[in-house]
Amino acid sequence: MSELVEKAQRASELATRLAVCTTEQKNDALKLIAAQLLEETAFILTENKKDLAAGRANGIGDHLLDRLRLTEERMKDMAEGLHQVADLPDPVGEILEGWERPNGLQIEKIRVPLGVIGMIYEARPNVTVDASSLCLKTGNTSLLRGSSSALHSNKAIIDVIHRALEISELPTDSVQLLEDTSRETVTKMLQLNECLDVIIPRGGAELIKTVVKNATVPVLETGVGNCHIYIDDHADHKMAVEIAVNAKTQRPSVCNSTETILIHKDWANKHFGALVQALKEKNVEIRANEKARQLDHSLLPASKEDWKTEYLDLIVAIRVVDRLEEAINHIQTYGSKHSEAIITENEENVAAFFKQVDAAALYHNASTRFTDGFEFGFGAEIGISTQKLHARGPMGLPALTSMKYIIRGTGQIK
Amino acid sequence: MSELVEKAQRASELATRLAVCTTEQKNDALKLIAAQLLEETAFILTENKKDLAAGRANGIGDHLLDRLRLTEERMKDMAEGLHQVADLPDPVGEILEGWERPNGLQIEKIRVPLGVIGMIYEARPNVTVDASSLCLKTGNTSLLRGSSSALHSNKAIIDVIHRALEISELPTDSVQLLEDTSRETVTKMLQLNECLDVIIPRGGAELIKTVVKNATVPVLETGVGNCHIYIDDHADHKMAVEIAVNAKTQRPSVCNSTETILIHKDWANKHFGALVQALKEKNVEIRANEKARQLDHSLLPASKEDWKTEYLDLIVAIRVVDRLEEAINHIQTYGSKHSEAIITENEENVAAFFKQVDAAALYHNASTRFTDGFEFGFGAEIGISTQKLHARGPMGLPALTSMKYIIRGTGQIK
Repeated sequence: MSELVEKAQRASELATRLAVCTTEQKNDALKLIAAQLLEETAFILTENKKDLAAGRANGIGDHLLDRLRLTEERMKDMAEGLHQVADLPDPVGEILEGWERPNGLQIEKIRVPLGVIGMIYEARPNVTVDASSLCLKTGNTSLLRGSSSALHSNKAIIDVIHRALEISELPTDSVQLLEDTSRETVTKMLQLNECLDVIIPRGGAELIKTVVKNATVPVLETGVGNCHIYIDDHADHKMAVEIAVNAKTQRPSVCNSTETILIHKDWANKHFGALVQALKEKNVEIRANEKARQLDHSLLPASKEDWKTEYLDLIVAIRVVDRLEEAINHIQTYGSKHSEAIITENEENVAAFFKQVDAAALYHNASTRFTDGFEFGFGAEIGISTQKLHARGPMGLPALTSMKYIIRGTGQIK
Repeated sequence: MSELVEKAQRASELATRLAVCTTEQKNDALKLIAAQLLEETAFILTENKKDLAAGRANGIGDHLLDRLRLTEERMKDMAEGLHQVADLPDPVGEILEGWERPNGLQIEKIRVPLGVIGMIYEARPNVTVDASSLCLKTGNTSLLRGSSSALHSNKAIIDVIHRALEISELPTDSVQLLEDTSRETVTKMLQLNECLDVIIPRGGAELIKTVVKNATVPVLETGVGNCHIYIDDHADHKMAVEIAVNAKTQRPSVCNSTETILIHKDWANKHFGALVQALKEKNVEIRANEKARQLDHSLLPASKEDWKTEYLDLIVAIRVVDRLEEAINHIQTYGSKHSEAIITENEENVAAFFKQVDAAALYHNASTRFTDGFEFGFGAEIGISTQKLHARGPMGLPALTSMKYIIRGTGQIK
């Protein structure tokens, strides 16, 4: 039997046992893992150095090396994160609804774990801790498939987690790491419907596309954000500039940063120069449509490709529009249904925007950068769902749960 | 452009328009469709006769012919069903949650339509009306792919629906039928992620398997039910027999009927004969394990294949077990996580059963036959979900919705 099938079956067998563990047992285990990670920091950093050396030898670049790198500081952050997850309320067992039928049947809808979660992710080894903790807290067993470039680090982390789980009351193999990181094995994992209840990909657009394309197991899709700010003709001048600049530049590499600014022509006629100047001060490269370039001939022209692009960089596309509807149509055509904002003092325009734009998160007079589990107050984030089934937008612990109906009768037959 | 892509793009374009229609506009349209169906009953029955004649010529069998057949009575039922859906509360626009963040952001979570629903189903033409009405009520455009054997009937029904929608305030093409029913086109439909938000298969196990295997669009899986009744040693004798017989025989062809009866040996020692007799009176064929056959040598032996089989027929597998845990293990091994019942007067055993068995619906002292949207009081049923993401168990109108976050700020930046 392959490593994949063996571990997946084990995860499936243990799911029932983990599902009935108490909140206290789960929280104790999370704290034990935190303590063990701190105690074995030296071991993990030694293993991490092997990945870093191999990465350097393979020329993977400074950016990726930084994502791969663990430090004492980062280890402390992971331990802190585990304590934070332990402190969150346990969604499992929550009674979501309850009612009685005319025939006397008492129906309750209660939250239960999903079962077995398959997690597929890229370089950062801290995701191993992060994913483990969120799955454990929600009573799900997990099968983790990290990047081959982080295999030494991930193996070390999982060893440490196992040593902590051994002294906890949870099954030791509640979390398992797949050491075979080959493409063929990933493809098989994506189709292991008899063992896995859900697959969550975490990483770049290519990874997510591959998972969605090949999975027969249900997928919680996360990721791509081609977000827009629409500056209405009734926008406050200072607020609009501040929000647009923040949404573009505060952290350009993340999915909730803004990629295109749409501007009503009347606002643009008055304030375009101020916006362009503020963006340029932050070293943002601007690609603009014809109407915008008429206001500033020095700007580069934008192509249709620009409207579609998630730059994740200090580049922004700007389109001056004639009316709100043109902005909404643009967003519907090119947006990825992630986060969209309108800046205006006109409530009617807000209402139209909120009603007609289809996206996970719609903002009025705020930066798109707030689409985030922590900013929403969820205390944890599994990712930001860009699909419409099950969970949409920032996903907290409840996104890792399902439900079951409990029906109590007194002999009812049909 | 193929019919599929053209209609799917149209559905996608119209989704935004349909999503903002009011409850009144949607309900009026449903009632207009009901009236139009009654008015054009003769036309639809004439078209239906063509399908029946072709079906007979192809020798499709009486059972399938019956599913294909429309009558005045069935037309009236459809019209009545449309009025019932119109009378249900509209889930769209419901505010699910609302809270304020320390930075002053006001967050609301509101229910919205899914967008475009692809429905793939088999012979019965009444599903065309059923699916259309549920999608319209929830503000979703739909692309319907029925069986080629019902194409005349489905086309006639869609023509009638379009004539009703023309005089309504909803877009006429809110509902569309795919006339190209080829396999290749279905496969393409299953992978049309840029236009479809969800695929719902309705039909037999083979259809559902094909959809799950080939779809890259998220699927709402429905269907297979290998359901169990466990008769505990503390079960009331009369109630246990009554529920077991009802769950097996009241309508054996449906997914929530029971396929295997698990019996604690102590109960079996006293009451096995009475149960067997009651089942035989209803012409149920029994396949039993060795321990059961020791109590009645006349019974056929059960194989492992029997434990796995959804008979959908007057056949039942019986297994006498030594204890509750053996019953729970059996269910976890062979069940399809649909509906499982325990008959007992022992509350501790109920608690263990409810906690340890992983299924959409768990019953205490009631028949598994109640797993149904109408019996649960939902007023409508899209199907019974056997997956754990998004919706589990009977799906009412809310299962056809998603949500979006609406965030109101006063200039917040990060």
